[in-house]
Amino acid sequence: DFDRAFEEVKPAFGVSEDELQDCLSQGGIIHYSPYIQNILEQGSLIVNQVRDDPAATLYTGVLHGPPGSGKTALAAKIALDSEYPFIKLLTPNSMIGFNEAMKIGHMQRIFEDAYKSTLSVIVIDNIERIVGWSAIGPRFDNAVVQALMILLKKQPPNGRRLLCLGTTSARSVLQQLDLFEHFDTDIAVPSVNTYNELAHVMQGSGAFDEQSLQQAIRELQENKHNDRVGVGIKRILKNIGTARQNPGDMPNEFARAMNKSMGESNIQTNEYS
Amino acid sequence: DFDRAFEEVKPAFGVSEDELQDCLSQGGIIHYSPYIQNILEQGSLIVNQVRDDPAATLYTGVLHGPPGSGKTALAAKIALDSEYPFIKLLTPNSMIGFNEAMKIGHMQRIFEDAYKSTLSVIVIDNIERIVGWSAIGPRFDNAVVQALMILLKKQPPNGRRLLCLGTTSARSVLQQLDLFEHFDTDIAVPSVNTYNELAHVMQGSGAFDEQSLQQAIRELQENKHNDRVGVGIKRILKNIGTARQNPGDMPNEFARAMNKSMGESNIQTNEYS
Amino acid sequence: DFDRAFEEVKPAFGVSEDELQDCLSQGGIIHYSPYIQNILEQGSLIVNQVRDDPAATLYTGVLHGPPGSGKTALAAKIALDSEYPFIKLLTPNSMIGFNEAMKIGHMQRIFEDAYKSTLSVIVIDNIERIVGWSAIGPRFDNAVVQALMILLKKQPPNGRRLLCLGTTSARSVLQQLDLFEHFDTDIAVPSVNTYNELAHVMQGSGAFDEQSLQQAIRELQENKHNDRVGVGIKRILKNIGTARQNPGDMPNEFARAMNKSMGESNIQTNEYS
Amino acid sequence: DFDRAFEEVKPAFGVSEDELQDCLSQGGIIHYSPYIQNILEQGSLIVNQVRDDPAATLYTGVLHGPPGSGKTALAAKIALDSEYPFIKLLTPNSMIGFNEAMKIGHMQRIFEDAYKSTLSVIVIDNIERIVGWSAIGPRFDNAVVQALMILLKKQPPNGRRLLCLGTTSARSVLQQLDLFEHFDTDIAVPSVNTYNELAHVMQGSGAFDEQSLQQAIRELQENKHNDRVGVGIKRILKNIGTARQNPGDMPNEFARAMNKSMGESNIQTNEYS
Amino acid sequence: DFDRAFEEVKPAFGVSEDELQDCLSQGGIIHYSPYIQNILEQGSLIVNQVRDDPAATLYTGVLHGPPGSGKTALAAKIALDSEYPFIKLLTPNSMIGFNEAMKIGHMQRIFEDAYKSTLSVIVIDNIERIVGWSAIGPRFDNAVVQALMILLKKQPPNGRRLLCLGTTSARSVLQQLDLFEHFDTDIAVPSVNTYNELAHVMQGSGAFDEQSLQQAIRELQENKHNDRVGVGIKRILKNIGTARQNPGDMPNEFARAMNKSMGESNIQTNEYS
Amino acid sequence: DFDRAFEEVKPAFGVSEDELQDCLSQGGIIHYSPYIQNILEQGSLIVNQVRDDPAATLYTGVLHGPPGSGKTALAAKIALDSEYPFIKLLTPNSMIGFNEAMKIGHMQRIFEDAYKSTLSVIVIDNIERIVGWSAIGPRFDNAVVQALMILLKKQPPNGRRLLCLGTTSARSVLQQLDLFEHFDTDIAVPSVNTYNELAHVMQGSGAFDEQSLQQAIRELQENKHNDRVGVGIKRILKNIGTARQNPGDMPNEFARAMNKSMGESNIQTNEYS
Ligand SMILES: Nc1ncnc2c1ncn2[C@@H]1O[C@H](COP(=O)(O)OP(=O)(O)OP(=O)(O)O)[C@@H](O)[C@H]1O
Ligand SMILES: Nc1ncnc2c1ncn2[C@@H]1O[C@H](COP(=O)(O)OP(=O)(O)OP(=O)(O)O)[C@@H](O)[C@H]1O
Ligand SMILES: Nc1ncnc2c1ncn2[C@@H]1O[C@H](COP(=O)(O)OP(=O)(O)OP(=O)(O)O)[C@@H](O)[C@H]1O
Ligand SMILES: Nc1ncnc2c1ncn2[C@@H]1O[C@H](COP(=O)(O)OP(=O)(O)OP(=O)(O)O)[C@@H](O)[C@H]1O
Ligand SMILES: Nc1ncnc2c1ncn2[C@@H]1O[C@H](COP(=O)(O)OP(=O)(O)OP(=O)(O)O)[C@@H](O)[C@H]1O
Ligand SMILES: Nc1ncnc2c1ncn2[C@@H]1O[C@H](COP(=O)(O)OP(=O)(O)OP(=O)(O)O)[C@@H](O)[C@H]1O
Ligand SMILES: [Mg+2]
Ligand SMILES: [Mg+2]
Ligand SMILES: [Mg+2]
Ligand SMILES: [Mg+2]
Ligand SMILES: [Mg+2]
Ligand SMILES: [Mg+2]
Repeated sequence: DFDRAFEEVKPAFGVSEDELQDCLSQGGIIHYSPYIQNILEQGSLIVNQVRDDPAATLYTGVLHGPPGSGKTALAAKIALDSEYPFIKLLTPNSMIGFNEAMKIGHMQRIFEDAYKSTLSVIVIDNIERIVGWSAIGPRFDNAVVQALMILLKKQPPNGRRLLCLGTTSARSVLQQLDLFEHFDTDIAVPSVNTYNELAHVMQGSGAFDEQSLQQAIRELQENKHNDRVGVGIKRILKNIGTARQNPGDMPNEFARAMNKSMGESNIQTNEYS
Repeated sequence: DFDRAFEEVKPAFGVSEDELQDCLSQGGIIHYSPYIQNILEQGSLIVNQVRDDPAATLYTGVLHGPPGSGKTALAAKIALDSEYPFIKLLTPNSMIGFNEAMKIGHMQRIFEDAYKSTLSVIVIDNIERIVGWSAIGPRFDNAVVQALMILLKKQPPNGRRLLCLGTTSARSVLQQLDLFEHFDTDIAVPSVNTYNELAHVMQGSGAFDEQSLQQAIRELQENKHNDRVGVGIKRILKNIGTARQNPGDMPNEFARAMNKSMGESNIQTNEYS
Repeated sequence: DFDRAFEEVKPAFGVSEDELQDCLSQGGIIHYSPYIQNILEQGSLIVNQVRDDPAATLYTGVLHGPPGSGKTALAAKIALDSEYPFIKLLTPNSMIGFNEAMKIGHMQRIFEDAYKSTLSVIVIDNIERIVGWSAIGPRFDNAVVQALMILLKKQPPNGRRLLCLGTTSARSVLQQLDLFEHFDTDIAVPSVNTYNELAHVMQGSGAFDEQSLQQAIRELQENKHNDRVGVGIKRILKNIGTARQNPGDMPNEFARAMNKSMGESNIQTNEYS
Repeated sequence: DFDRAFEEVKPAFGVSEDELQDCLSQGGIIHYSPYIQNILEQGSLIVNQVRDDPAATLYTGVLHGPPGSGKTALAAKIALDSEYPFIKLLTPNSMIGFNEAMKIGHMQRIFEDAYKSTLSVIVIDNIERIVGWSAIGPRFDNAVVQALMILLKKQPPNGRRLLCLGTTSARSVLQQLDLFEHFDTDIAVPSVNTYNELAHVMQGSGAFDEQSLQQAIRELQENKHNDRVGVGIKRILKNIGTARQNPGDMPNEFARAMNKSMGESNIQTNEYS
Repeated sequence: DFDRAFEEVKPAFGVSEDELQDCLSQGGIIHYSPYIQNILEQGSLIVNQVRDDPAATLYTGVLHGPPGSGKTALAAKIALDSEYPFIKLLTPNSMIGFNEAMKIGHMQRIFEDAYKSTLSVIVIDNIERIVGWSAIGPRFDNAVVQALMILLKKQPPNGRRLLCLGTTSARSVLQQLDLFEHFDTDIAVPSVNTYNELAHVMQGSGAFDEQSLQQAIRELQENKHNDRVGVGIKRILKNIGTARQNPGDMPNEFARAMNKSMGESNIQTNEYS
Repeated sequence: DFDRAFEEVKPAFGVSEDELQDCLSQGGIIHYSPYIQNILEQGSLIVNQVRDDPAATLYTGVLHGPPGSGKTALAAKIALDSEYPFIKLLTPNSMIGFNEAMKIGHMQRIFEDAYKSTLSVIVIDNIERIVGWSAIGPRFDNAVVQALMILLKKQPPNGRRLLCLGTTSARSVLQQLDLFEHFDTDIAVPSVNTYNELAHVMQGSGAFDEQSLQQAIRELQENKHNDRVGVGIKRILKNIGTARQNPGDMPNEFARAMNKSMGESNIQTNEYS
């Protein structure tokens, strides 16, 4: 199994398996739609190519989709399932308040560590945050963008192989920055869109019995504005938590929370909605 | 009662109960409208969820409304009523003249302290001031905005739970900065709008007898421009203070002051008016 | 009397009574129009409220008007007449060449000193200069603006009371910067506008006998462009000085100087003209 | 032969023959079109002129073309084939995170080293990355641009001769920056455009037998959007690698990958497509 | 006489009489037009007022006019003729390469020195250069502009009197910067405009005999584009120098040089032409 | 002769005769057109005036023209022929990577050295590069521009005389920067424009016999787009070098190279073409 296999090849330098595990909620990945399996399979193909194709010593892909759609969780899952000896998360969380030089230094150290392993995967999470993007201006850390561009194209040293998986909720930002085309491939991660998918997520959460599930769904569908769900799985799981606070009235409570989320996702001028 | 309960769980690291208490005037919260109770109940629900829902280890909300509408007082009230062991105010007042790095360091320290407690609430007051927003340019401390974005989304360490309550008089600024959508929920705080509500505030202040109250209200309503009040409770309380300086002519004095405030709130191109 | 009263309460930390006295010319305030008395009374009301109203622990007002209209002198007069134990002038003159951090440090020290006294008044003179405003760009010290915004809203510590009186010749600049609405009240200071008022100032200066006064006024009125005076008292007093250089021809000399000043004030695209 | 010749003249200071060799994949240059030979011949002419023409002590040329078209490989090939005693690669890869001063220092050191040899070639790879270009703003390291402009025009010391070969995927950027006209000549590097050329590349890769080659080509041509290939050789070689992962279904797998690449190159608003 | 008077009152701290003398060419001021006398008289009036009017402890004026019209020479003349004990030139020449802080420090030191004398005059030469103005951007040293604004309005200490004379070829720049209105008065300095005035200058230079003078003028007037001269005295004196190089053909040589200067002054989109 | 004369007056401080000599190719100046002589004579006149006219202690001129037209060579020639004791080249080549302060320091040192000699000439080469001009933004080192403006107008100390000769390929840039009008005179340097001039250059190079010269010219003229040459002498000399590489086919090779250069000079939106 994976855990054992992993233990065996664990190299001396830092592996952030735990950090990546933290990106997955306890319930793990819920296969609420065939897309999910499809995404994981695309990931698996890339993982294999980097491991096996002598020419593919560097491969880069970016997962993009609306906020909370599960990009980080899916990238983490692909990375953890790769069973590569070096697995690392590059996240804005550990660079709060870093200036450009510190960010670049941090990134370079992670890539240098990766170059020491024969087979490595780096998850570059939330790229718009890593580059400090603000739409007003617009402002961003150009030196960090440039460093990313170079690192995403720089061949690892002889005999080493590297897979980079980025995530972003702002594809158009990455396109404007010319960062998007620096990835070999891109993988779209959707929201939960149909009521069928929503029901799947509710079942997967284990919080509803069949009757209250149906009741909640019915209530949502009565609202004529709600022709599709269009809410990320992350918020749906939060809303289930909120509903759980009111055990006597879970379906209503959940419907109320979902209605608000769905309203917001309608208003948001999000590029993915 | 609260004070005792609080004493018991007081942790070693800094708790700014006093600082938050200072945000409430001596008269406390005046329930001049059902909205006020409603806001406090929304706060209470969130407080409970963060305490009880195993999945909701991080919850963030922002109180927004016109200047002086009572956002800070209400956020402080919710925080103080939470009875959480860690309660902290993050305010621009203690960051005057800080550069971006110092601001971020200060914020990080407060969040680090919060992460040490099992259950914490941080009030992030006057966010447009924390990020140094000026409409001319526009200018703002982008690194501070980025740090806030990350901190508002970063999961506390295992077993720790965190509630963040922001306040702002500039919702549209937060929206432009993409900060608004980084909060899980938002709570609108209104001005005092009807004459009924105004009368309620006047009674709550204990400064007027019934007759002088009616006289002042009548005087205000005679001004045909004054179809609604539209003044924040903070200024109303200040105006009551001004009127008190002239005990012989309180109703007139108060009406005069209110007329000026109501005129200004008509002119102001404020997004909430 | 004031001088004695003041002596008695003089606190240990710096009081800039002299500095404020320097803002008044030797002739003192000339009551050339009822507006002047009205402004001083508005000031006096505020002074009383801050001293007496338990709720008004912080009050802020801004005097605004065309260049040389007497804003600084009137603010200084109000402050000196307040008989508060702590009186301080915050002026760009003592911050020449300061960078943002130094300016903010200087301002903070003055406010800290004020917070040590039970009752304090700070005159913040020439705010557009303190914040380094230039219309080209526009450019300004944003950190200084932010610090001012916070200081103007920050409650003094328990038991301390603070009055802040700002002055500016650029109300619209302060409005653009959102600084204007950070003051509780604003007081407009006019130019000398009617020939009656001008005659009043000339009398007050003691430089003209009745005949030469009338002669000068007549001469000015003959110029059909001069339907109103529209010149600040500061320049009028300077022009009287210039005329005095030519004792033989004072009325003409004065009229000539005034004509030039009035021409300029017509041309200037000043927001107050 | 080249290797021996090179060994003999190897000077003391750094020669990055290996680094340049790394720019060529193991299969080397595939002559999929007469253009390739033509480019190499143009390079050879310049190489000879710098070696032999007493007046041409400095010659500069830039290879430009769409991403992945083989610019770096061709520049490296020309440099390696020059048999000059000093061969050096100036690449953004070794300047990640450098600030302007460090970049310029690094560049100057390389040019100084070159000036010490009687005959030198410097490959300046990926110039848009060296100058840190971002289209948003636009932003770039102006001091680096200026330094490049000067270095590209500065005569080597007496008796020394220098050839500079730049590469870029962003000709229009270099033109906007006035850098393009600082080169004596420019050489266009095309994508693989016809199906004939594509077949040539596939053969050259040695991965396909004749039948599967034809099958893949046929499949691609059936897609009516695919009237021309328009994909850089770099990606084509990557796609061959991907197809190789699925030995049972190589033609299909390759066609699928190529279809995606061709779609992207249609969408991309690239100046070369 | 002046020299002796000056010696007697020479204070310890630096007086730049020499520096100011250098601003006058050996021929001194040529009174080619009544304007010149008029300018000097205006200066003299101000000089007297600052010396004698008890209220005029600070007076500021700015000389403005086209390039080379003699602004610096005239300001120097007024200052030297003032016979004030403290005379100082504040010039960009001694601040080459100074950053904002150094410039401001230098200016402050000069003003501080002036404040030590009972009666002082400071010539602030070429203000657009002191503030580092460039029309592209536009760019300028805002902190220097702010410091100048404050210094031009700051009262000298008790008993001290100060006259400031600025010069500029860019009145509209000073107006844009709001610096122009910070001067109490402004004095326009014209070009040499009529052929009469030109003849006057030529005579004053002592380089022409009557005949060659007439010949040169005639030659210039034959050019129908030359309806007015419109050239600053500085260049005219330079042109006379050029002509002198060719003693055999002075009138022609001078006419040729003048024709070129007059052509340029026609083309220049100068605000004064 | 010049060499001896020069030796005799060589001052202690640095004279960059060699550096200037390097700006002239071995063939020296080719008089391909009467313009060339004319430019040198204009230079000679100025050289004489600075040496002899007591009033002309400072004279500045700028040579401007299309890239490669020979500006630097001609300025160097004028300077070398001046036989002044101090001759110095101020070139961007020796300021690569300098920041503004370093550039200004370097320039000041050169001017200071010049001020030590009684008679000096400074060639300020490639001014647009010295000020770091980039059309995007536009960006430039404003402090360097300001320093140049001041240095170009600053009188040398008593008894010293200075001639400054600038060069630029970007007259309009210097005009935008207001630098152009800071020169006393400007001298235009043309491209090689007629086929007659081209033939002259070819002869001057000594590379062609009469027949091959005619053949090359004829071939060029057959191309109907080539009504005028419009190529700088620098490139023409380079093209001759290229042709020389192919001795068997010089006329054709030269025509080919020239055709390309002439095409480029047609396309270039250069202000001089
Ligand atoms: N099918 C699924 N795909 C992704 N995540 C899932 C799925 N099923 C359950 N989850 C859970 O949903 C959550 C998705 O959150 P995640 O942080 O990955 O979203 P995100 O798109 O990265 O959000 P953000 O836009 O804030 O970065 C995780 O807790 C994950 O464990
Ligand atoms: N119902 C109420 N809601 C809020 N504040 C109330 C209420 N009743 C009384 N108050 C008092 O009114 C004042 C509200 O001021 P507060 O500073 O909270 O307003 P604010 O909206 O945060 O102002 P600002 O826009 O300046 O930040 C406090 O002193 C509070 O104690
Ligand atoms: N009624 C009056 N109001 C104000 N100032 C008066 C009055 N009568 C006389 N003065 C004198 O007029 C002068 C007014 O100058 P002051 O500096 O106060 O004007 P200001 O509006 O602050 O100018 P600025 O716009 O330059 O800041 C002072 O010397 C003051 O003593
Ligand atoms: N004819 C060819 N021309 C160029 N490269 C070829 C050719 N045949 C095979 N190759 C191989 O194709 C690859 C081309 O990649 P290269 O990095 O040179 O492209 P590039 O245009 O520089 O890409 P980028 O735009 O990313 O800088 C190299 O591995 C090279 O060895
Ligand atoms: N009537 C005059 N007015 C001014 N200058 C005169 C006059 N007659 C002779 N001169 C001489 O003419 C020259 C004028 O040059 P000056 O530097 O004062 O001009 P400027 O306007 O300051 O030039 P710039 O615009 O370059 O600053 C001086 O050498 C001065 O001695
Ligand atoms: N008549 C001439 N004028 C100028 N240069 C000539 C002439 N005849 C021959 N030359 C040679 O031509 C070359 C001209 O190059 P130079 O560097 O001076 O041109 P430039 O205009 O300064 O170029 P750039 O625009 O790149 O600065 C020099 O090598 C010079 O010796
Ligand atoms: Mg994520
Ligand atoms: Mg508040
Ligand atoms: Mg004032
Ligand atoms: Mg490349
Ligand atoms: Mg001058
Ligand atoms: Mg040149």
